[in-house]
Amino acid sequence: MASVAAAPASDTSAPSLKASAKDCATNGMAEWDASFKAADTVIELAVGRKAKPDLTNLAFGTVFTDHMLTIEWTSDEGWQKPHICPFRNLSIHPACSALHYAVELFEGMKAYRGADGAVRLFRPMLNMKRMLKSAERASLPSFDGAELLECIRKLVELDQDWVPQSDSASLYIRPTFVGTEPSLGVKKPSRALLFVILSPVGSYFSTGAKPVSLWADPKYIRAWRGGTGDCKMGGNYGASIYAQSEAVELGCQQVLWLYGEDHQITEVGTMNLFLYWINEDGEEELATPPLDGIILPGITRQSILELTRKWGEFKVSERYLTMADLRRALKEDRVKEMFGSGTACVVSPVGRILYQGENLFIPCLGDHPPLASRLLKELTDIQYGQTPSDWTYLV
Amino acid sequence: MASVAAAPASDTSAPSLKASAKDCATNGMAEWDASFKAADTVIELAVGRKAKPDLTNLAFGTVFTDHMLTIEWTSDEGWQKPHICPFRNLSIHPACSALHYAVELFEGMKAYRGADGAVRLFRPMLNMKRMLKSAERASLPSFDGAELLECIRKLVELDQDWVPQSDSASLYIRPTFVGTEPSLGVKKPSRALLFVILSPVGSYFSTGAKPVSLWADPKYIRAWRGGTGDCKMGGNYGASIYAQSEAVELGCQQVLWLYGEDHQITEVGTMNLFLYWINEDGEEELATPPLDGIILPGITRQSILELTRKWGEFKVSERYLTMADLRRALKEDRVKEMFGSGTACVVSPVGRILYQGENLFIPCLGDHPPLASRLLKELTDIQYGQTPSDWTYLV
Repeated sequence: MASVAAAPASDTSAPSLKASAKDCATNGMAEWDASFKAADTVIELAVGRKAKPDLTNLAFGTVFTDHMLTIEWTSDEGWQKPHICPFRNLSIHPACSALHYAVELFEGMKAYRGADGAVRLFRPMLNMKRMLKSAERASLPSFDGAELLECIRKLVELDQDWVPQSDSASLYIRPTFVGTEPSLGVKKPSRALLFVILSPVGSYFSTGAKPVSLWADPKYIRAWRGGTGDCKMGGNYGASIYAQSEAVELGCQQVLWLYGEDHQITEVGTMNLFLYWINEDGEEELATPPLDGIILPGITRQSILELTRKWGEFKVSERYLTMADLRRALKEDRVKEMFGSGTACVVSPVGRILYQGENLFIPCLGDHPPLASRLLKELTDIQYGQTPSDWTYLV
Repeated sequence: MASVAAAPASDTSAPSLKASAKDCATNGMAEWDASFKAADTVIELAVGRKAKPDLTNLAFGTVFTDHMLTIEWTSDEGWQKPHICPFRNLSIHPACSALHYAVELFEGMKAYRGADGAVRLFRPMLNMKRMLKSAERASLPSFDGAELLECIRKLVELDQDWVPQSDSASLYIRPTFVGTEPSLGVKKPSRALLFVILSPVGSYFSTGAKPVSLWADPKYIRAWRGGTGDCKMGGNYGASIYAQSEAVELGCQQVLWLYGEDHQITEVGTMNLFLYWINEDGEEELATPPLDGIILPGITRQSILELTRKWGEFKVSERYLTMADLRRALKEDRVKEMFGSGTACVVSPVGRILYQGENLFIPCLGDHPPLASRLLKELTDIQYGQTPSDWTYLV
């Protein structure tokens, strides 16, 4: 059992829960009265228990636990009771609006087992707030984020044997929310399904914590202003796989997404991006692109900004960065490190960027760049309970 | 029974079937040897038959016929045999890549019953070619479009009683292709499902053939260069519903999608757009935006271009149009008509555009603008078999 950790004052990038109440009104529901309640959860236990997998060399997100959470919504009846049931296939109408029009969104969270045996989540209310923002953009109904978090806590508690006894593995939590409108008009769905599945995971990349190589080309654009790049909606991801395949064909692991005529640096694959350098004005700076509508507001991104601002050791900026800035800084030996951040990978150093036929090599100091390594340790120490923090939420 | 109508020489906007063979190679399959074959189709008949609905006031795509087509693919075993089975829910793994990452695409076609009782499709190989192009962009496997068309023909033949006896109704055909990868890595799916469902439909808009009102605002952007706007992928549609709701709140029926600093006119809701006017040079012109990567290559769009070019009565252009162009032309009384085109609506006149707080009224001559009406008649006469044409394909 646990209560929701109070969000620090700096948690302002996600919309407030109050703001999201607007959609409830739009959907003709009273505010939080209309949400499902965790206390109503109906639990149907699995008859047997599956064997736990060996996490060494296990591909990300391929094995699932014994149970899942499902919550149905209809425009006529509102939210139904949450159900925890055995992990099983979903029965989906062939005209389902998630399959035809990508009325869908997801979140990514992890449950970590500490050396003390306790299971913790990391800043989960930020995921709930971002999920509500995505739901509004996807024209899906709103709900009380604290109630969903409590449902997720119950689910993880039930399947807690699946949280690995390891400080390099965790239980990945995938809340998913899809429109299940059973008709072909392109419109706000009258039915929806929120479900949560759990998957024990090791490292996201098959290369482990080694620096990743990136392909940067303006041919494919991940997101644009007026689109959905700042929400965790399915359409952002499916559209990226084609470019990702081209990156692999060119000998790179991930895509570095560029934007605009000036080839702004935006994100990496499915991660936010940080550049640690001596900037144009000679200042030591950790920089990441600002949340201007095309950047996913990552929770690891936000945590890195907050941690490093608290350190006060160098300038920390949300600012635009272009490939020309990077290339010039590399020529002038001003780049210290570059790394991606995300729930799946935590912190992942960048070693090489293929851009306009040229390989740009980023300093990595024997695969362990100091700032990325320090941030990885500070974050995982909080996540695994080595460092007490109000960012953790006990299951 | 019927053979595929030879594609006219002007059918060049869709990629050739040969070009799509590239992905077969990418997926490690031999060219067309790897496609499913219509001759292998296994048919499981429905036990009963559902009652046919009254099409008056029936919402678009809400009722489905007795049977559906499903074809499964795995990277290990390639395409399985096509199955025609009773219309029923799909059993979908909760980690399915279509539900999480919108690895999905669709097509829209119609079967029309002529006064002669025969059932016809309209230029269906163009749908097959566009579907193959979408599949490549979505990282889904390729197949032989002629084989899928023959499977669809079999399905429509089986459910032919559902093709309405009416020249204002038809049987809407929805081929859908989704990734069914049962794991959470963002990657090319190792499993996929192609399915086709059929729905008897009347008019797409609840207002029937009356002119539609549009909301034009650069706040939301449908598609951008380097994205997926020229493919019929689900993500393009789910992202549009939010803007559509805002249009309705502002008293308009659809969104007029703008692009760029100069507010280029691109598409309307889920339709391509045409402007019939006296252009800046005093020429009578039918204009529609060019296929530059952000425009869906509509089959009705292509057919209207081909028909009007054959008439030779006025200039027919694929060119950029901005809101400033339109506003000036309206002030100078140079706009004759504006209309949307698409499979669902065929031709749909535009009556009003709300732009920057101002209502722009488009001439509609008592709801029946002459060019839109003439095109609607020419197209439906072909579709319903009143005019013989190599654009029709007999079921």
